[in-house]
Amino acid sequence: MQLPDFDRNAGLIRAIALDVDSKEVLMDAYMNEEAWMETLRTGFAVYYSRTRQKLWRKGEKSGNKQLVHEIRINCNGDSALLFVKQLGGAACHEGYHSCFYRRIARVDFERAHGMPSLRLEQATIIAERIFDPVQVYEQ
Amino acid sequence: MQLPDFDRNAGLIRAIALDVDSKEVLMDAYMNEEAWMETLRTGFAVYYSRTRQKLWRKGEKSGNKQLVHEIRINCNGDSALLFVKQLGGAACHEGYHSCFYRRIARVDFERAHGMPSLRLEQATIIAERIFDPVQVYEQ
Repeated sequence: MQLPDFDRNAGLIRAIALDVDSKEVLMDAYMNEEAWMETLRTGFAVYYSRTRQKLWRKGEKSGNKQLVHEIRINCNGDSALLFVKQLGGAACHEGYHSCFYRRIARVDFERAHGMPSLRLEQATIIAERIFDPVQVYEQ
Repeated sequence: MQLPDFDRNAGLIRAIALDVDSKEVLMDAYMNEEAWMETLRTGFAVYYSRTRQKLWRKGEKSGNKQLVHEIRINCNGDSALLFVKQLGGAACHEGYHSCFYRRIARVDFERAHGMPSLRLEQATIIAERIFDPVQVYEQ
């Protein structure tokens, strides 16, 4: 099998960016073959935006580029982990280090008398904002 | 916005499972609303298989279920991190703890004289096999 396998999902693979130091998941996105090739050539993460249907050079506007240190691929060849150095500290357009800055459910062993059970909660912000998105993205 | 937002991507969200202890990324998959509701109700990860077009109760065959401890959601509401206790130790049907057991590229500062550049390599297995898939999945 050619890796990554772009044929499996209509030309796209999934890409999950992790902080190369803390291993925290920063964001997830998609890549087409062009994005993949440009990532390899430049060393900076390039994704494919499905909504805008074009290459998404991460950090082009905000300066928050991602220097890629290592790439792993999954068993099916259609999903990649990118271990990156996140320039500017924030991967999320909302100004957080990680896009996953909200918790929405937690296990509740109490309620279920020792059996697993998840308690849905109001989205709880569990991270500090690094930048103000209004300032960074204003036109 | 209702969280998760199943409307954004034709009824599906992405779900990335992480080891609740080591925070290692184990696998990524999709969930529809039915999978999400069953995950909440049972406390064990249930995904939606796009290839088989039905619920995928993780570990139903192998016993390698995932007890969900916490769920985070991303900025767009269409991707979730599941922090799980991986029963049996292996999330991957190939017998590895993580589906991302192969490295396919590494940064090469040398070659590019200090500029970032990624060197593609033969897929290198960087993990130990926990079980033999032939034994676990044979009919």
